[in-house]
Amino acid sequence: MRSNYLGIDLGGTEVKLAIVDKKGKILEQDSFPNSCPSDPKKVVKNIITLFKKMKNRKSIKSTGIGVAGDVDQEKGVVRFSPNLKWKNIKLLKLLKPSLPNPIIIDNDANAAAWGAYWLETKGRARNLLCITLGTGIGGGIVFNGKLYHGASGTAGEIGHVTLVPHGLRCNCGNKGCIERYLGANYLVAQAKEKLKKNRSKIIENLTNGNIENISPKILAKAANRGDKISKNVWKVAGERLGTVLASIVNLLNPEIIVLAGGVSKAGSLLLKPIKETIKKNAFATSYRNCRIL
Amino acid sequence: MRSNYLGIDLGGTEVKLAIVDKKGKILEQDSFPNSCPSDPKKVVKNIITLFKKMKNRKSIKSTGIGVAGDVDQEKGVVRFSPNLKWKNIKLLKLLKPSLPNPIIIDNDANAAAWGAYWLETKGRARNLLCITLGTGIGGGIVFNGKLYHGASGTAGEIGHVTLVPHGLRCNCGNKGCIERYLGANYLVAQAKEKLKKNRSKIIENLTNGNIENISPKILAKAANRGDKISKNVWKVAGERLGTVLASIVNLLNPEIIVLAGGVSKAGSLLLKPIKETIKKNAFATSYRNCRIL
Repeated sequence: MRSNYLGIDLGGTEVKLAIVDKKGKILEQDSFPNSCPSDPKKVVKNIITLFKKMKNRKSIKSTGIGVAGDVDQEKGVVRFSPNLKWKNIKLLKLLKPSLPNPIIIDNDANAAAWGAYWLETKGRARNLLCITLGTGIGGGIVFNGKLYHGASGTAGEIGHVTLVPHGLRCNCGNKGCIERYLGANYLVAQAKEKLKKNRSKIIENLTNGNIENISPKILAKAANRGDKISKNVWKVAGERLGTVLASIVNLLNPEIIVLAGGVSKAGSLLLKPIKETIKKNAFATSYRNCRIL
Repeated sequence: MRSNYLGIDLGGTEVKLAIVDKKGKILEQDSFPNSCPSDPKKVVKNIITLFKKMKNRKSIKSTGIGVAGDVDQEKGVVRFSPNLKWKNIKLLKLLKPSLPNPIIIDNDANAAAWGAYWLETKGRARNLLCITLGTGIGGGIVFNGKLYHGASGTAGEIGHVTLVPHGLRCNCGNKGCIERYLGANYLVAQAKEKLKKNRSKIIENLTNGNIENISPKILAKAANRGDKISKNVWKVAGERLGTVLASIVNLLNPEIIVLAGGVSKAGSLLLKPIKETIKKNAFATSYRNCRIL
């Protein structure tokens, strides 16, 4: 009886495989490091090799793959991935003979949105936004129980909503994108900038005195231990994301917003200023009807 | 054979009725002035009186009503309308006995979006955004052939997307909303401000020397006659709306954006800087796949 699912997270530094049951419980998982730029054929070979070692491989009903990049879901083609340095790779064609069919390939933030919709709301929410906070900021949207892809499959690019018109130059070519202020590296850079003027014993302890060891994880730890610089970085970050989310709440009146990804692990350090800012800036009814997880 | 439709535009200064055929062609129309605050029962009575005088009244299949305000579409209740000064008015209940059923009541910008979807795309677009530019800025969204209302019916409030964080105070309570920079009155105010420092013979001619006569219509006329102040007002307005629309293009990857409402009549004065800004700021594929009408 084939009742389980295979999920693959295809990222620039790591490729993860997991087999989950119909409730989303992980039955087994494995991964291998991915070097970038990565050879698609080699990645595919590694995926298949790893899959063949999995105990529950005969129980799979279908396969879902999230790729860090711009994906044509209908054709199963990775149109462009800056993280993998891939362009127009026919991933579905490469994987179809060796992995359980049907295979669905989508952008990783879209896959995260679908996961959040399925697991967090049990498919009950009518609409949901999922925001992945990591090196970059991605997003996925579920409307009326379906992933929303837009006219050409690129919908959900929340990271490239403008926060500051004519602001700092973003990798995408635009200026002032929220990603440019909230991506993991930029949070770290903001902390470093502040540490030039002020000392923080808490951060010094956590980084063994080497400022280059700062990461969002360390900034969260430091803030939770009372470090003012880190606390301020999170507060400002939350207010900035809250400003963009307030606009999105007014525009889309979503039922649920899910924050995911490494940076979201800062928890209430980020969530509190986000909620306060949305409450202050968005319509009261829209704010009241929106859960932020 | 009942094959026509009754449409009603219920606004703060005027109430318009029209009977249209199945292709959207207006067969007859009439209107009456509305004073604000307006008594709902009186408005309903006036609507019914006017409808009873219409020649094609026996040919109506169903009725659609757009109201300037926050509407509960499922219950047919006007929850709040600042323009009419209405709160929780059971409009459907009041009209049901006297107008052709079924009756659909929605926010006026949502009604405009549905009209644009029906008439401009013949129901063929998969997704569409309609933006109404007038005293205020409204919006409506069509996804997968359906009007999108969001979790509590208020989706589409494009006017209250933040353009400038911590910017000018908007009526909604937030700061820096795009409406605060692009609403008809604000465009006029910007022109007046500039006229304090510089003279414009073209505007003086068009307003008979009285600056109080300036309107978006006059600013468009003046710009088309080469007036620098007016041209600049439209350029800046287009760039501002373009900034917000570039974010929305990245977020929603819409197939079509329709600009409607009085201020949109400025035409290419507004459309040109809008398109240039979106092209500059949004993802290339998303921009290429979006038609702006």
